[in-house]
Amino acid sequence: MLRGAARALTVGSLNPKVVALADHHLAGRVARRAQSMQEDLESNPASHPFKEIIYCNHSNPQSQGQQPNKFFREVLALCDYPHLLDRSQTSFLFSSDAIARARDILGLIPGRSTGGYSHCQGIEGLRDAIADGIASRDGLPSYAEDIFLTDGAAAPVHMMMHLLIRDRQDGILCPIPSHSLYTDSMVLRGATLVPYYLDESKGWRVNISDLKKQLDGARSKGIAVRGLVVVNPGNPTGQVLSEENQCEIVELCKNEGLVLLADEVYQENIYTDQKKFNSFKKVAGSIGHGEGDISLVSFHSVSNGYYGECGRRGGYMEVTGFSSEVRKEVYKVASLSSCSNISGQILMSLVMNPPKVGDESYTSYRAERDNILSSLSRCAEAMVSTFNSLEGMSCSKAEGAISVFPSVRLPPQAISAAEAMNTEPDAFYALRLLESTGIVVVPGSVFGQVPGTWHFRCTILPQEEKIPLIISRFKAFHEAFMEEFRS
Amino acid sequence: MLRGAARALTVGSLNPKVVALADHHLAGRVARRAQSMQEDLESNPASHPFKEIIYCNHSNPQSQGQQPNKFFREVLALCDYPHLLDRSQTSFLFSSDAIARARDILGLIPGRSTGGYSHCQGIEGLRDAIADGIASRDGLPSYAEDIFLTDGAAAPVHMMMHLLIRDRQDGILCPIPSHSLYTDSMVLRGATLVPYYLDESKGWRVNISDLKKQLDGARSKGIAVRGLVVVNPGNPTGQVLSEENQCEIVELCKNEGLVLLADEVYQENIYTDQKKFNSFKKVAGSIGHGEGDISLVSFHSVSNGYYGECGRRGGYMEVTGFSSEVRKEVYKVASLSSCSNISGQILMSLVMNPPKVGDESYTSYRAERDNILSSLSRCAEAMVSTFNSLEGMSCSKAEGAISVFPSVRLPPQAISAAEAMNTEPDAFYALRLLESTGIVVVPGSVFGQVPGTWHFRCTILPQEEKIPLIISRFKAFHEAFMEEFRS
Repeated sequence: MLRGAARALTVGSLNPKVVALADHHLAGRVARRAQSMQEDLESNPASHPFKEIIYCNHSNPQSQGQQPNKFFREVLALCDYPHLLDRSQTSFLFSSDAIARARDILGLIPGRSTGGYSHCQGIEGLRDAIADGIASRDGLPSYAEDIFLTDGAAAPVHMMMHLLIRDRQDGILCPIPSHSLYTDSMVLRGATLVPYYLDESKGWRVNISDLKKQLDGARSKGIAVRGLVVVNPGNPTGQVLSEENQCEIVELCKNEGLVLLADEVYQENIYTDQKKFNSFKKVAGSIGHGEGDISLVSFHSVSNGYYGECGRRGGYMEVTGFSSEVRKEVYKVASLSSCSNISGQILMSLVMNPPKVGDESYTSYRAERDNILSSLSRCAEAMVSTFNSLEGMSCSKAEGAISVFPSVRLPPQAISAAEAMNTEPDAFYALRLLESTGIVVVPGSVFGQVPGTWHFRCTILPQEEKIPLIISRFKAFHEAFMEEFRS
Repeated sequence: MLRGAARALTVGSLNPKVVALADHHLAGRVARRAQSMQEDLESNPASHPFKEIIYCNHSNPQSQGQQPNKFFREVLALCDYPHLLDRSQTSFLFSSDAIARARDILGLIPGRSTGGYSHCQGIEGLRDAIADGIASRDGLPSYAEDIFLTDGAAAPVHMMMHLLIRDRQDGILCPIPSHSLYTDSMVLRGATLVPYYLDESKGWRVNISDLKKQLDGARSKGIAVRGLVVVNPGNPTGQVLSEENQCEIVELCKNEGLVLLADEVYQENIYTDQKKFNSFKKVAGSIGHGEGDISLVSFHSVSNGYYGECGRRGGYMEVTGFSSEVRKEVYKVASLSSCSNISGQILMSLVMNPPKVGDESYTSYRAERDNILSSLSRCAEAMVSTFNSLEGMSCSKAEGAISVFPSVRLPPQAISAAEAMNTEPDAFYALRLLESTGIVVVPGSVFGQVPGTWHFRCTILPQEEKIPLIISRFKAFHEAFMEEFRS
C-alpha cells in the first residue's frame, strides 16, 4: 500500500503530454504475445506448431544475426583501450589500417582521451571527417560547424521538435504511414500533427497537391505549420523518392517557409538499380537553392545500412539554412546533454569515411558490406513477390530501407471477427499469423493508413536462410485465413 | 542573405522555453577568453605572463589527465570486438578477469550482440549486476526492474522533469548554489524553480526550516511543488550531508508529498574520514520508510568517481516508491530514445561491480582507484587551506565531489570597477585571475549565491603536480588584487 509521498504521485498529476503518448498497445500486444510464446518454446519446444519465433517486427539488424563490420569494431576496440597501440602482439590481432585509423582518431581528441566530454556538437576532427563524407556524397561543400553529433537519430529529432514547437497551434506535416518517432515527439511537445498520406498507388510517392491541401487546411484552422518531415528511403514503406518528387518537396518547403526535416537514415539501404539515394541537400542544390533559400535538417545514424549498430547510439544532424541567431538556439538545446557518447561519435565518422581502395581492410570491408546489402535485397525481392502472389494482397517494390508494407484486403467476415474481439482488423490478422506461424509483424494501424485499408509492416532483416521458411509458412497461413473467412 | 523559408525561421518564432535558457554567458565569457588565450599561447608562448592555461572550471577528469581504469577499458575493448576472445594472443594483452568478464557480459546479451538495441531500460543482466551493487552498498534489496540505464545522468533528470512538470504552476525545490542541469531542465519545461539556499556557515548543510519556509511560500503563491532536488555530495559546494540532515530531508519529502530527486553521482568521491556516503534510499530505510512512504529517484553515472568516464555517457536512475501506473509513464518517457548506448551500459555495470579480492586485476584496479582518490583528496585539502589563508576568503572543507566553492569578500572598489565594466563582481574577479595567472574558475553567479556574497567554483581535478604552481600563482594574484582595490 502506498502512503505519504508515494501516494501523492498519481498518473492524474503527471504531465498530460507524457500520459497522452501512445503506449503502442497494438505493436506491444503482438510483441508481448510473441515474447510469451518464446518463453513457452524455451520451456517446451512442442508448445506451438513451430520451433522458433521469427521476428519481422524489429528494426534491429544485429539482434537478427547481422554481423558488425570488422574494421569498425577493430577501431572502436583500439580507441577504447589505446594501450594496445603500444604492444607488438596488436599487429597480429588488428588490421594495419584499423591501427592507423585509431591513432588518427586519438590524435584528433584533446589529450587523446575518449573518456572526456567533447564539444557539445561532437569532436571537431570527427565532424570534419563526416562533413568530408557528406561533401563527397553530394558533390557540395559541407562544414563541421553544421554537424551536431548525437546519440542516434531520435535525439536530434526531439531537439528540433523542441525548438520548433511552442504550443498546440504549431503543427508539423508528417507522412502517413509513419514510424512512431515523429508522432511521439509531436505528442510530447503538444504539437498538432498535420498528416499527409503517401500515395500507395504510385509506390508511396509524395503527392504534392495532397500535401498542399493538408497544409492549407491546417492553416485555415489557425495552425502555424513550422516544418515538414520526409523519410527517404521510407519507413515503413520502403520507397526511394524520385529526384523529381524530391524537387517538388523542396520547392514547396521553400515557397511555404517550412523547415524540411529529412530523415535520411536509410541512405545506404538501396535495393534497386533504377534509383539512387539523393540527399535533399543535393537536390536543393541541383535546382539552385542554397543556404539562403531553405532551412534543412538531415538526420543520419549508425543504426542502419550495412553497419546496423543501433545499440551504439551514434548519429548526426546536418543543419543548413538557419540564421546564426537560430543556430545558437539549436546549440543551446544540443548542449543540454553535454555531448553524445564518444564511441558513437567515432563510429559515425567511420560510417561516413570507411576504408578506401588500397587500405588493408578495403576488400573485407567491401565484401561484408556487399554481402549484407545484397542479401537484404534478395530478401526484399522474395518477400515482395510472395506477398504479390497472395490473394487480396499487394506490396510495393522494396526500393530501400528495411521493411515492406503490404496491403491486405481482409474479407468482411475477418473484419467482423476482429470487431467482435474489439481488435483492429490488421492486429487480428497479425495475431493469427503469429499464433499459426511464429512470424511477428506489426499491424499497419500502428503507423497509420488510409481508413478502410489494412496493412502490416514486415522487415527484411531476418537471416536469408530463413526466408524460404517464412515464405512457405506465410503462404500456408494466408491461404487458410482467407479460406476460413471467405463469405 | 536569407530568403524564402530560411528567412521565415527567426528566434522570435522558436519555442520561448528554449530561447529562455541561459546561454551561461558568464561561464561562457570566462571560458571563451581562456580559449582565445590558449590559442595565443600556441602561436606565441610568450604572449601571456604564463606558459599554460590551467582549467579549474571543467568537470571533465580525463581531459585533465586522469587515466581511465585499465580493467574497465579492457572489458569495453573485448566487448567491442569479441573476435579477440577466440585468439590466443589475447591472453598476452588482456587480464584474465577482463576476458572472463567480457565473456560473461556477452553471455547476458541476446545474440551476444553489442550492436543491437537493448530493452529500453537497458540489458537486463547488466541491470541485475547494478542492482546487486546497490544492494551491497546499502544493505537493502534493489531490483533490476527499478533501474533505468541512461546516457549519463542528465538524460534521466530531463526525463523526470518531463514527467513531473505540467506547466508554470508546477515547481521543484532546488538547492542554491546549483549546477545548471537542474535550472536548465526546469526552464526548458517551464517549471517554477523554488530555490532553497544551502547554509554556507554550516558547511553547506540543508537548513530544513528554511526549506520548509520556501516550500510554504511557494504553495501560498499557488505553486504545486512536485519534488525536491538534493545533490549529495554537493556540486559545486563539495559537502557530504550528515545522516541526520539526510533524515530531515527524507521526513520532509515524506510528509509533504514531494518526490525526492537525489543526485548521487559523486558517491565515490569522498575525502573525509568523518563522513561516509549514505544513499537516500539507505537513509530512508534506516528510519523505517520504504516503497510505500516515499517516491525516490537516485541518479548515478560513470562520469565521476575514480573512473571519470564522462564521454562514455553511462548512467542510471533507480526509481522506487512509484505506483505501477506511474512507473508505466516513466517507462514511456524512457522508451522515447529506444535505449542508452550499450558501451555506457556495460561501463555502468563495471562501476557497480568492479574487480573483487582474488581477481587478477584487483590489485591494479585498487591501486588506480586509491591513487586517484587520494590525489584528489590532497588537491582539495591544499586548495581549501590556501583559500582559507587568503585575505577576505573563506572556504568550506571539500568533503566530497570534485570542486570547492570559496567565498571572496570583494573590496568595494573592486565591486565598483566591475560595475563600471557592466560585469558581475565575481566574473570580474575570475577574468582578472585568468588574465594574470592562466587559471580558469567559474564565477559564483553562474550557480547562484546569497545576494551580496561572491564566490567561485574551483575544481580539484588538475593533476597534482600542478597544485603548487596553482597555489603560488593564486596567492600572488589575490594579494595584488586586494592591494589594487584597497580603499
